[in-house]
Amino acid sequence: MIEKRKPLAVKEAINQVMEYSVVGKGEKVTLQESYGRFLAEDLIADHPVPPFDRSPYDGYAIRSIDTIHAQSDHPIEFEVIDEIGAGSVSDYTLGRMQAIRIMTGAQMPVGSDAVVMLELTKMFQQDNKSFMSIKRPFKKGDNVSFKGEDTPEGSVLVKKGTYITPGVIALLATFGYEKVSVVKKPKIGIIATGSELLNVGEPLVPGKIRNSNSYMIEAQARRSGAAPVFLGKLVDDLEKCYDAIASALEKVDFLITTGGVSVGDYDYLPEIYKRLGANVLFNKVAMRPGSVTTVAELNGKLLFGLSGNPSACYVGFELFVRPIVRIFLNSNHPHLQKVTATLGEDFPKPNPFTRFVRGVISMENGQVLATPVGLDKSNVVTSLAEANAFIVLPGGTRGYKAGDTVDVLLIEDQTGSEQPWAESFK
Amino acid sequence: MIEKRKPLAVKEAINQVMEYSVVGKGEKVTLQESYGRFLAEDLIADHPVPPFDRSPYDGYAIRSIDTIHAQSDHPIEFEVIDEIGAGSVSDYTLGRMQAIRIMTGAQMPVGSDAVVMLELTKMFQQDNKSFMSIKRPFKKGDNVSFKGEDTPEGSVLVKKGTYITPGVIALLATFGYEKVSVVKKPKIGIIATGSELLNVGEPLVPGKIRNSNSYMIEAQARRSGAAPVFLGKLVDDLEKCYDAIASALEKVDFLITTGGVSVGDYDYLPEIYKRLGANVLFNKVAMRPGSVTTVAELNGKLLFGLSGNPSACYVGFELFVRPIVRIFLNSNHPHLQKVTATLGEDFPKPNPFTRFVRGVISMENGQVLATPVGLDKSNVVTSLAEANAFIVLPGGTRGYKAGDTVDVLLIEDQTGSEQPWAESFK
Repeated sequence: MIEKRKPLAVKEAINQVMEYSVVGKGEKVTLQESYGRFLAEDLIADHPVPPFDRSPYDGYAIRSIDTIHAQSDHPIEFEVIDEIGAGSVSDYTLGRMQAIRIMTGAQMPVGSDAVVMLELTKMFQQDNKSFMSIKRPFKKGDNVSFKGEDTPEGSVLVKKGTYITPGVIALLATFGYEKVSVVKKPKIGIIATGSELLNVGEPLVPGKIRNSNSYMIEAQARRSGAAPVFLGKLVDDLEKCYDAIASALEKVDFLITTGGVSVGDYDYLPEIYKRLGANVLFNKVAMRPGSVTTVAELNGKLLFGLSGNPSACYVGFELFVRPIVRIFLNSNHPHLQKVTATLGEDFPKPNPFTRFVRGVISMENGQVLATPVGLDKSNVVTSLAEANAFIVLPGGTRGYKAGDTVDVLLIEDQTGSEQPWAESFK
Repeated sequence: MIEKRKPLAVKEAINQVMEYSVVGKGEKVTLQESYGRFLAEDLIADHPVPPFDRSPYDGYAIRSIDTIHAQSDHPIEFEVIDEIGAGSVSDYTLGRMQAIRIMTGAQMPVGSDAVVMLELTKMFQQDNKSFMSIKRPFKKGDNVSFKGEDTPEGSVLVKKGTYITPGVIALLATFGYEKVSVVKKPKIGIIATGSELLNVGEPLVPGKIRNSNSYMIEAQARRSGAAPVFLGKLVDDLEKCYDAIASALEKVDFLITTGGVSVGDYDYLPEIYKRLGANVLFNKVAMRPGSVTTVAELNGKLLFGLSGNPSACYVGFELFVRPIVRIFLNSNHPHLQKVTATLGEDFPKPNPFTRFVRGVISMENGQVLATPVGLDKSNVVTSLAEANAFIVLPGGTRGYKAGDTVDVLLIEDQTGSEQPWAESFK
């Protein structure tokens, strides 16, 4: 009657899911629309930076050789023969004891090899000519930004799969990317199951709770870089659920269901996977919360059966769905960023399975501290709002002490990790 | 001729800008649209959580008193009189030696005071009746989630001004917020000035560079929570710039210009502020990059004159504009999150002014390490793409050594700090 399930190690479960990862196709968007997306192609420098020798300051372009004898009690005078605004180029070639007024960012005139900052000069007029004087010598190359010194032409500046930040946008603009090739967002279908679920706008009645999981997952999907599609909330009815899931599968890249994966009498997902002919990768994971997390695959398309419990659902998404989204987006760091931290408080509960404890990380005096938030009961929804990390407590212990070194997964981070686990992570 | 400007300490400059901060108005959006926005009102629990005593597991609701004598060699049998799916309520009152089958999340039936997990029971049929037996005693309250144990009704769950994460969305859904009151995004006008600026789609020509700042600032504005409006790219022409800025001011909450704030001959912003009758708060800050950052105010509306140099522009936005946006969004942690870290590399340059060095933070073995990326020349645009932090190196030193403790500002973080500086921060 009661199905006996063998729990799979978290590491093994993630590995099995990752075998079905696929990479998405690119699409062109405008530079402005590319913020927060993921590069589908390497960002290449179409020109050297700076594109020409230029002045990083307002001042005068000079020949350094003319300044050798300048001293504070022996100023040297230069005739100012031209001035170059940013974006302009001088037609003059600088001769002996000549200077050209140059603005920040302007191209160095022919013959010049150094720039004197405006503040270090004294200007004066004589015989209807302009002059300036300086009181110290300059070396060849002083205050010159050389062509290509930042970036040689053709270099790969940012790798495909990178999350597009404002800094990346600046680079894309600099290198002429009016349109940017980003990876098309994977379409994730979301179906909430459970007869106990009310719509958010409905008043509470005995025995029922409001559907929060599908909204939460939608936001998690957005954060991960995917395009969520909410496909409805279903009561626990085998036929209806089967039809909804079968038709949903045709419309999306991945499908998430919440609820219905336990061993209870109303948990229809196992039966539905069977009818679909889906290959169930696992239906129990050695972790808390989220032990009933189930992942199946049908013709290479992944079906994530997440727990109906909000915390378990949340963890299930971040551990199993997020890396699949990130691989789709071409990232080579698909998993949540893993860092090591010092545990900020005792965690005295025995730990038969690896536990993902909601926590907050803080950085003080060069130390990373990870502190659990609230109780860690599976049904505590409030702590999800505060948490910015999961503290990973490997199973097989009687608990952990403040001061222990622990692995921590960062939830609100876009950097990611190549691997989801440390050695200790079973 | 050359205007002498007195540099203001960073701390003082930020303080002066913050005096003109204003808080924005709220608007209602759907729960789905609220992801990534900022709460305009406290999130209040409209009911206790759980809303009723409920079972966190699949199992049987029982009276604990009936289990006192259960032992492994002395199982005790219960008649199963009903079953409750999630979302349903039993009409029965549990009597002596009776059990009711209960699903995860379902309401405890009247008379019951504990739940036995399915795995710990044995089921059998006899005389057309259902029975189950258990082999150990349970205490009152075992495996029961009590009404309100997570959250009492009426509690403030999340404060206004909070960034709406997936966890906050789960809470909003749970408490019936079909529509969410979020702060209207401030409208930030962006004008790029500089005759050297090409459009992104234009080929490079001698002396010119592509306009990257306005795209970068747009993305920074989006990341900060604002709605950027690009109002054009202007050549260095006093009249045109004046007209554009004067008319832009009427359409936006804040205005950012890039370029034109140095002391060069083509830097018209100082003259424009004068003509507008704007009150210039400062036009020089004791920092690198970004020393020419200028902030003015006209009838309480802030005009940010950021440097035309990309790095200086970036820093200027994060230090001066972001906190103004966040106060508008009702946050009480408006500044970039400040943490302390260990410097990962020597920084041997003398530091007359406080320096904001682009860096990457990493967390290993419980330590926060901050490492400068690339050269820190003001015109190095590539390092902006890699950086996720500014390493703050207070002025007045001959440099810093690897291993020194430094303040670091996190760029890609939504948490924020109440204050932007440490004591050392001048």
